[in-house]
Amino acid sequence: MIKNIIGNSDFIESLRGKKASFLLALSNTDTANIEGITQAGIPGKMYLTPTLDSEFLCTGEVRSLDIIAETPKGVPTPALITRAVHMLNPYSSLEILDLGLQVKPKINYFNIHDFNIKPSSRIDENANINALDIFQKGLAFGQKYTTTDDYIILAESIPSGTSTACATAQALGYDAKNLFSSSFKDTPSNIRETTIEKSLKHIKEEDDIFSILGKVSDNMQIFNAGFILGLNNTKKVLLAGGTQMASVLLIINSILKTMDGTFNSSNLALCTTKWVYEDKNSNIKALLEMLNFKINAYYPEFDFSTSNHPALKLYDEGEAKEGVGAGGALVYGLINGLEKEQIINKVESFLG
Amino acid sequence: MIKNIIGNSDFIESLRGKKASFLLALSNTDTANIEGITQAGIPGKMYLTPTLDSEFLCTGEVRSLDIIAETPKGVPTPALITRAVHMLNPYSSLEILDLGLQVKPKINYFNIHDFNIKPSSRIDENANINALDIFQKGLAFGQKYTTTDDYIILAESIPSGTSTACATAQALGYDAKNLFSSSFKDTPSNIRETTIEKSLKHIKEEDDIFSILGKVSDNMQIFNAGFILGLNNTKKVLLAGGTQMASVLLIINSILKTMDGTFNSSNLALCTTKWVYEDKNSNIKALLEMLNFKINAYYPEFDFSTSNHPALKLYDEGEAKEGVGAGGALVYGLINGLEKEQIINKVESFLG
Repeated sequence: MIKNIIGNSDFIESLRGKKASFLLALSNTDTANIEGITQAGIPGKMYLTPTLDSEFLCTGEVRSLDIIAETPKGVPTPALITRAVHMLNPYSSLEILDLGLQVKPKINYFNIHDFNIKPSSRIDENANINALDIFQKGLAFGQKYTTTDDYIILAESIPSGTSTACATAQALGYDAKNLFSSSFKDTPSNIRETTIEKSLKHIKEEDDIFSILGKVSDNMQIFNAGFILGLNNTKKVLLAGGTQMASVLLIINSILKTMDGTFNSSNLALCTTKWVYEDKNSNIKALLEMLNFKINAYYPEFDFSTSNHPALKLYDEGEAKEGVGAGGALVYGLINGLEKEQIINKVESFLG
Repeated sequence: MIKNIIGNSDFIESLRGKKASFLLALSNTDTANIEGITQAGIPGKMYLTPTLDSEFLCTGEVRSLDIIAETPKGVPTPALITRAVHMLNPYSSLEILDLGLQVKPKINYFNIHDFNIKPSSRIDENANINALDIFQKGLAFGQKYTTTDDYIILAESIPSGTSTACATAQALGYDAKNLFSSSFKDTPSNIRETTIEKSLKHIKEEDDIFSILGKVSDNMQIFNAGFILGLNNTKKVLLAGGTQMASVLLIINSILKTMDGTFNSSNLALCTTKWVYEDKNSNIKALLEMLNFKINAYYPEFDFSTSNHPALKLYDEGEAKEGVGAGGALVYGLINGLEKEQIINKVESFLG
């Protein structure tokens, strides 16, 4: 079952049986090196998470490390969900967007788009991103991107991305301080709040939107805002992510306001997980309602309640929640005839 | 699960969800009339096997005979496996290459490429093939072949093909006498060895590579060597077969050496069955390691251990093993979401 967050079911229903290109946007921000800010990976090696996620999604193997990325509490990466769906009902193609990776994934035969982007700095020390450049790279990619598939699933993996997203939304003037999700069940508010507060202090009155983004955001958000605007509604897009993808939409919203532009969002939707939707510490619906354009948003009626695996139970308890397009992947699987139990069994098979 | 024979998983992983054209190359060599050399069919009617295989694969019916081709021990043709996968997750297209059939298959509506090739003679009496002509026909076909599908699965059915393959490899100077598979669990060494020894005696010092192939090989191997070189890496190809397809690669290897040519093999891979991979009387890995170009090779983790059908159990005991692209078909099925048990159930349904 697919549930609506906002909008109605028509958009997602129209995609049943259609072919999807799965695009995974990867990036590193040094913000993830701030101790305790994220649990999306291995402490001290947080920067490896997007690399490992892409290796596992494409090949079923983690190659740049000998174990699957797990949080200290033992929550396995949501890439397991995205891979499980790919094995049961493959995406028509799988492409990687390298938006500033510290370590390149060890993958052959897959289309890896390299945009010559560097990992960004800690937002509490000024992320130091040439945001206009990154945005324009996204815009150009969207303008020239072609696929014979019917729609795009756009996913992300960037550790501490919810912190940079929360900083971004606030810096752009949205009253969004308490609306952002995190990889923790109980967000370590102190560390995150302090980091975000420090980042916001770098913003000066004369900063334009790209100067602001360059200080507090990340490559993934800025690039994808450009990418979506570059596509210009020519292709259906499922933003597969939680509050980070909502932040991408808020960036688009702000750019449109700044430029007095209009935007046809009829081919755009967001899909996240039930864990994000039901999260008490964030509110994706509230974020989406801040947009001046209409958007359809969905989550799948999927959890691990029927699984006995303790590592998967942690998802239901609110750890991890989303990433590597898990929510979008689940929606894709469900609208292509997969059953919840099949997906759970496949995910369990990875964990042994 | 797909396992590597050599290379890594990237090539086959990149084909998940992609569309495949299944090409079945059929031929007869009178070598199959040598009593006891093969069990790939009905004694006295061995020449019918490729015809019946293609009829069953395309239509689910055997039309040129009233029963499914079975070995004297009751091992059913591996076409059952290839057909089962086609029913569960169809190949995008199914085409027949007639490379010298004694009896044309009774099939309409399918693309049957007729190359005006005659069945070849017994190799112990000189196969008498115009090898350069057959090779050039393959080359021309590869150069002009087009498909909108993402890759080609190239399979074969030619009784006694492992004997002609073993003769071919030895005639080309490869130390491969004991590396070739057969349709028997225990290869009838005497008959095969005598046949191959006799065939090799026809080769004279002045023979060039095509003269050699014309004496000891078969149409399938020679044509497909040309076909692959003609495609020139423009399309991804899965060679769906065991040691016979390895011999096709050895022919290519020798032609390249003779002509001092280079060859990009990055879009080429081989898939065979677990039964071939684990066969104690042959060694496909050793054959592939003789190549001067790189190749990825795979086999599916598929057997009939969970089946109760006695005829299928014979596969696990080492009879039959491969043919009609069974290994490639299984890999295709598995990377498109089929489960082992589904395939087994479908195969069993053909046997009643």
